[in-house]
Amino acid sequence: MIYRRKVFFYETDAQGIVHHSNYPRYFEEARGFYLEQIGHPYEKIREEYNIDIVLVSLSVQYRKPLFFGDTFEIHFSIPKMDRFRFSFRYTVKKDGETVAVGETEHVCLDRKSRKIVSIPEVLRI
Amino acid sequence: MIYRRKVFFYETDAQGIVHHSNYPRYFEEARGFYLEQIGHPYEKIREEYNIDIVLVSLSVQYRKPLFFGDTFEIHFSIPKMDRFRFSFRYTVKKDGETVAVGETEHVCLDRKSRKIVSIPEVLRI
Amino acid sequence: MIYRRKVFFYETDAQGIVHHSNYPRYFEEARGFYLEQIGHPYEKIREEYNIDIVLVSLSVQYRKPLFFGDTFEIHFSIPKMDRFRFSFRYTVKKDGETVAVGETEHVCLDRKSRKIVSIPEVLRI
Amino acid sequence: MIYRRKVFFYETDAQGIVHHSNYPRYFEEARGFYLEQIGHPYEKIREEYNIDIVLVSLSVQYRKPLFFGDTFEIHFSIPKMDRFRFSFRYTVKKDGETVAVGETEHVCLDRKSRKIVSIPEVLRI
Repeated sequence: MIYRRKVFFYETDAQGIVHHSNYPRYFEEARGFYLEQIGHPYEKIREEYNIDIVLVSLSVQYRKPLFFGDTFEIHFSIPKMDRFRFSFRYTVKKDGETVAVGETEHVCLDRKSRKIVSIPEVLRI
Repeated sequence: MIYRRKVFFYETDAQGIVHHSNYPRYFEEARGFYLEQIGHPYEKIREEYNIDIVLVSLSVQYRKPLFFGDTFEIHFSIPKMDRFRFSFRYTVKKDGETVAVGETEHVCLDRKSRKIVSIPEVLRI
Repeated sequence: MIYRRKVFFYETDAQGIVHHSNYPRYFEEARGFYLEQIGHPYEKIREEYNIDIVLVSLSVQYRKPLFFGDTFEIHFSIPKMDRFRFSFRYTVKKDGETVAVGETEHVCLDRKSRKIVSIPEVLRI
Repeated sequence: MIYRRKVFFYETDAQGIVHHSNYPRYFEEARGFYLEQIGHPYEKIREEYNIDIVLVSLSVQYRKPLFFGDTFEIHFSIPKMDRFRFSFRYTVKKDGETVAVGETEHVCLDRKSRKIVSIPEVLRI
C-alpha cells in the first residue's frame, strides 16, 4: 500500500531539508491511511474497542534529504503480527528512489486500565 | 514576569529562522512558567479543579526573526481578567530589542462537560 | 478556494483536541495549495524570484475544537494586496459549521539582502 | 552528562502522553546542550567550520510514557566516534526510572557542497 503527499514548508529546518523528527509523523500518517483503507479508521477503533495503539519502538535510516516542494511516497507493509504486537515497515521514496526506511512496533492498550490487550480481530492479517 | 530560553534547532525552517507557528508554543511555555511561579502548576490545576484552560483567541505581530542559537525573553502580563475570561500579553525580546508581540485570550472548561466555568479563585489577580 | 484535509493524530494534545498551534500551520498549507492552484507553487517562486514570503502578523479566533478523525475545510480569500503587503483570510469549517477564523499578513523579502521587495507580478490579483 | 527539562503541554497528544515524535527532538536538545557544555555551541560550529551535522539513523525504545508536568532527564554518552561518523546514546529517566532509550548516528556535511567531511578536531573525543 502506498501513501503519498507533499512536504509542507513548516516541516523544513534551517538546513533547508525536512527535519528528521517529521518522519515518525509521516509514518503515523501512513498507518492512519492504512486503517482507513481497510475500513477501520483509527478514530473508530479507539472508540469501538476502547483501545489506544501505542508505539513501543521506532527506527529510521535517513539516506537522502527531502526538500520543501518534494512529493514523497511511503510504501509500507506489516512484516510481523502476533496476538499482542505488530510492526510496520516503511520505505520513503522520491522520484522512485528510496530516501529513507523505517520500522515501528506497536501494542494495543486498554484506554482505561492502560494494560496491554490483544489486537482486535478486525486488524489481524 | 520574564520567561527565558534558547531557540531549538528543530524550531527553525528553511528560511533559516524560527517558524512562526512556534511563537504560540513559546507563549504557552510562558503561561506554564507563570502558573508554576505562582505555585499553581497547570498540571495540578487541571487535576484539582478538573478544568482545561483553553485558548479562544491568539494574535502575534512578528517584527524581526529569531535564529537558531538565539536566546529570547518573553515579558508577559495579564491585562484582563474577569470571572470567565482572561488574557495574556507577551513581548518577545532578544538582546533588549522587541522582536514580536502577542496576545492570547482564555477561558476555563470543565473537563467532563466541556462547559465554560468560572476561573478558579487561586488564579484570580 | 477551498483546502480540505483530515486531522493527523500527532496534531492533537492532552485535551483531546487539535492543539491551537497547528492552525497557523493549516493556514500555511492553504496558502501553499493556493499558490499551486494558480500555477506558481511556492518552491518555484522562491527560486525564480529569489524571495521568501514572510509572515508579519497572525490572528486566530477559536470557536469550536477540532478532534482527531475530523475532516476540515479552509475557505480562504485575499482581502488585501498592495505593492508590498498582502493578507489572507481563513474560515475553518467542519460539517458546514465555522470552527475558527483567522488572518495572516505577508511581505516578500529578497533572500540575500533580507530587504522587503515588491510582490512579484504573477502573484498580484 | 545530563540534560533536564519539563514536558511542555503542546508535546502531549490525545492519548494524554508525550507524542513519540518529540523524543528525537529531546535528543537534539541534549546534543545541543552537550555542544554548549564543551564550549562549542552548534550555531558557532555551523558558521566556523561551515558544516551541518546531519542525522543518518535514529532508534528509540519507548518503555513508559511521559505525561504533561513530568520532569525528565536525558543521560547521554558518545559510544562511537571515528573520523567521519559518531553516535549518541540516550537514556530518558523520570524519577530515577528509565522510560526510554535511544541512539542516533551522525555525519558532518559541508554546507555548500553537501559532501561528507571529517569531524572537526574540536569535537573529537
